[in-house]
Amino acid sequence: MYSAKIKVTLRRSILDPQGKAVEHSFQSLGYDKIKDTRIGKFIELKIDASSETEAKKMTDEVCGKLLANPVMEDYEYEITSLNGDK
Amino acid sequence: MYSAKIKVTLRRSILDPQGKAVEHSFQSLGYDKIKDTRIGKFIELKIDASSETEAKKMTDEVCGKLLANPVMEDYEYEITSLNGDK
Repeated sequence: MYSAKIKVTLRRSILDPQGKAVEHSFQSLGYDKIKDTRIGKFIELKIDASSETEAKKMTDEVCGKLLANPVMEDYEYEITSLNGDK
Repeated sequence: MYSAKIKVTLRRSILDPQGKAVEHSFQSLGYDKIKDTRIGKFIELKIDASSETEAKKMTDEVCGKLLANPVMEDYEYEITSLNGDK
């Protein structure tokens, strides 16, 4: 069993209105030293794969097909082995 | 200048309907080896702080006040120094 932790972020060139709104709230609260706020998704899942290679392959596939929009978003992930599988 | 990368996740005891919906889609696509899908937020921001301690303090404050719901969510973050500040 493997655990995948995936970060999906908007590409730098794409405007992030949600991040802008949060940044505006920071400023209203007096945190004017915070900037470049960008909001993305964080996805955790468990994969019952027989090898780390298979787990990586499956993670790449679901990121490309479902979790990230390949036109607007980038993703990165970490795979860790649970219960000592290799 | 420091960069903060924050992960906000729903507590384990809280039902995650968005994660369940995504998991259902995985199964429709034939990925039936994926389970325990949980969806959270990933936030990146830059902090113009004079020390890493100040950057951490500010990150903790904005997470507690704005980014995470302390009743339902947990957060963790990493602070990294940009342009070689300590």
